[in-house]
Amino acid sequence: MLNDLKQQVLAANLSLPTYGLVTFTWGNVSAIDRQQGLVVIKPSGIDYADMTAEDLVVVDLTGRIVEGCRRPSSDTATHLVLYQHFPEIGAVVHTHSRYATVWSQAGRPIPALGTTHGDYFYGEIPCTGPLSRQEIEGDYERETGELIVRTFRRQQCSPGEMPGVLVLSHGPFAWGKDAANAVHNAVVLEEVAAMALFTCQLAPAIAPMQTDLLNKHFLRKHGKNAYYGQ
Amino acid sequence: MLNDLKQQVLAANLSLPTYGLVTFTWGNVSAIDRQQGLVVIKPSGIDYADMTAEDLVVVDLTGRIVEGCRRPSSDTATHLVLYQHFPEIGAVVHTHSRYATVWSQAGRPIPALGTTHGDYFYGEIPCTGPLSRQEIEGDYERETGELIVRTFRRQQCSPGEMPGVLVLSHGPFAWGKDAANAVHNAVVLEEVAAMALFTCQLAPAIAPMQTDLLNKHFLRKHGKNAYYGQ
Amino acid sequence: MLNDLKQQVLAANLSLPTYGLVTFTWGNVSAIDRQQGLVVIKPSGIDYADMTAEDLVVVDLTGRIVEGCRRPSSDTATHLVLYQHFPEIGAVVHTHSRYATVWSQAGRPIPALGTTHGDYFYGEIPCTGPLSRQEIEGDYERETGELIVRTFRRQQCSPGEMPGVLVLSHGPFAWGKDAANAVHNAVVLEEVAAMALFTCQLAPAIAPMQTDLLNKHFLRKHGKNAYYGQ
Amino acid sequence: MLNDLKQQVLAANLSLPTYGLVTFTWGNVSAIDRQQGLVVIKPSGIDYADMTAEDLVVVDLTGRIVEGCRRPSSDTATHLVLYQHFPEIGAVVHTHSRYATVWSQAGRPIPALGTTHGDYFYGEIPCTGPLSRQEIEGDYERETGELIVRTFRRQQCSPGEMPGVLVLSHGPFAWGKDAANAVHNAVVLEEVAAMALFTCQLAPAIAPMQTDLLNKHFLRKHGKNAYYGQ
Repeated sequence: MLNDLKQQVLAANLSLPTYGLVTFTWGNVSAIDRQQGLVVIKPSGIDYADMTAEDLVVVDLTGRIVEGCRRPSSDTATHLVLYQHFPEIGAVVHTHSRYATVWSQAGRPIPALGTTHGDYFYGEIPCTGPLSRQEIEGDYERETGELIVRTFRRQQCSPGEMPGVLVLSHGPFAWGKDAANAVHNAVVLEEVAAMALFTCQLAPAIAPMQTDLLNKHFLRKHGKNAYYGQ
Repeated sequence: MLNDLKQQVLAANLSLPTYGLVTFTWGNVSAIDRQQGLVVIKPSGIDYADMTAEDLVVVDLTGRIVEGCRRPSSDTATHLVLYQHFPEIGAVVHTHSRYATVWSQAGRPIPALGTTHGDYFYGEIPCTGPLSRQEIEGDYERETGELIVRTFRRQQCSPGEMPGVLVLSHGPFAWGKDAANAVHNAVVLEEVAAMALFTCQLAPAIAPMQTDLLNKHFLRKHGKNAYYGQ
Repeated sequence: MLNDLKQQVLAANLSLPTYGLVTFTWGNVSAIDRQQGLVVIKPSGIDYADMTAEDLVVVDLTGRIVEGCRRPSSDTATHLVLYQHFPEIGAVVHTHSRYATVWSQAGRPIPALGTTHGDYFYGEIPCTGPLSRQEIEGDYERETGELIVRTFRRQQCSPGEMPGVLVLSHGPFAWGKDAANAVHNAVVLEEVAAMALFTCQLAPAIAPMQTDLLNKHFLRKHGKNAYYGQ
Repeated sequence: MLNDLKQQVLAANLSLPTYGLVTFTWGNVSAIDRQQGLVVIKPSGIDYADMTAEDLVVVDLTGRIVEGCRRPSSDTATHLVLYQHFPEIGAVVHTHSRYATVWSQAGRPIPALGTTHGDYFYGEIPCTGPLSRQEIEGDYERETGELIVRTFRRQQCSPGEMPGVLVLSHGPFAWGKDAANAVHNAVVLEEVAAMALFTCQLAPAIAPMQTDLLNKHFLRKHGKNAYYGQ
């Protein structure tokens, strides 16, 4: 069942420690088969070194387990909300990668300070506000997803132009058209977060990059007039 | 004698350089057999590359060597005080890992700034005050242990909910239910220390995370209602 | 055709991830055969792991493809402008290496703060100003090259004495007598950028190093009275 | 000739990149045979990967080449001055390791902020002042050694208790009883420099550690009453 998708999700999960994005089991990747409405996700608390395709769990969009002997990642509900509201995405990644988490902890969006950022993220990377006590004590993981969706709606962000977000006091989520692309965006988010941190230290009053330059870099790689490859 | 425990302590000591927590021989792990009241600890000054289970030393809770040809780690007395006063712990780790040591040198507790922290440490990670001249010149290593215990008592910290501490002008100690778990907590402490350092640089006036969020994250992983795995 | 030069350019491109200068495909190296007026450059968007000499593209100084089935790097036009105006250089490297990019994003030249810098860069490493909207929306990559050349002319920098530059809100370009030497200078630029960042944090009001010391270090390694090797 | 010493010097030089202390060939280790008054030193500008014992150069204390086909490191004159004035040392290391160089560039001594420092360096690690123009333009490398010696004399530092120094706008020198010990001290100096940098960022008004604690840590590892091993 969904063997190709499982192989992609397995490879993407295994690439997280390779890219230095996770410590221990702190991260998870899922991907969706939009036609069947089924999501393949990492199981809960298993070491990357031991994970095989059989350990992956298949759930439907309501969270019901369709296949798999293991418990799906505890963050599954967050992933599912993102799939429900962001129809253009095919995969989701959550990590606690160091520098993106630092911005989440500081509660600051990452300003667009250079072309590395603009090649992937079309503007400031949003940081959510807080959840209420009721939301935290209720269906917390689902509420985290709703918080992200709400933040994107309010800030009029498009998930296709902004493939990541910072959750306040928590860490980053990123997404993409498939599992490898979602991890790619998570790697870029981490690098952009590191560069922005040090840039702000060197130039505390730094303004965002020129809008023209941001437009140029994002649009030469994305959308119908894209032409770029480095 | 205590062969299983020795294997665990050996593996835990050897994992310290793998996790990037130690330079040269700057670190030591011990574990206790509570029934027999015996502690297995790393010998003094031996290279990790050369260490075997036979090099480990078995001491009782008074510090008497029960088995082993080598001298136990000079920090043994600190470990023993922790075992005596913290009955819920099964293993102790001491390192000079970079970022945790930076907080120790700055004499600042690590505030709980995000869920990475809250998943493991239930609140601010304490930093001890100074030892007196008499304590330093007396039984220094034992006094270091007493200082930690005193700090926990004063701040009403529970070793089960706070599996680590910063010793002023020195570095971190961490602990856990067994040797692997203690090292796991030392790795998390180091990562949390790094994230908190950079968060404070980005947002110098940062307040601790919401108490509700801290409660949620710590309690979903620990205690009788735990359900979480990433 | 140009087989030796292709091998040099291939090896130099493959060395970029080894030196930690690039994430994914964010970087490119080219080299020129001055007699034939032909440039060998990395193809667009190909993984370093899969690249072979056959993938490299040969272009003339107007950008016309002379050999190769792949598209040349989108940054080709920038490289070509540098070859046209800097006759003493034999190879060009572009990366988004972390610390050099941080200085580019901050819009600050890197001051000469020590002998590591002075051994390779004869003074402050320039940072360009912005491109105009017309330049960005026009022939952007060529304009980036022109901007670098204009910056060097205004600041009376010699490409032989200053083998690198920071492009505002973008990242570094470096060059050298051949592909390996250009990469060497890119590695040094990144290390010098890291050291300067942390030096400015430790001593915000730091002045540049003594001119006599800069002269000594640059001139003992470069030019006709050079005698140095470490 | 001096085959044992050559093997030690070779191994020590090769360990520099392993410990992450050098980029390219930026570093050199020498060691002295005090009875014969001969020094074995790294040749100039050779890659670590290609170096063999035959490449090492033997010089006497005046700098005359006694054996070897290659040119000795350009820093040889600095090493020789240190051997002449510091009779207790058996080996010298020079690197441009990142964090120690940052302190050199900032022109600040490294304060003793914790026991990692105190285990090896008995107090603040000195930073020299500048050389005069005449000294720089004269016998520069020898003058660098004289500057170090003068700094130690003025500050009443003992090379046995302070196995390293920062040269202003340049980088660190370290030493020890033999080549491996000198490299060990260079590794510690780099780690201590990193910790001190981040400590000063977190606590800009930090005072040095308690003198009693510094005494305890240095003296339990060094001198006639030493007992410590971790």
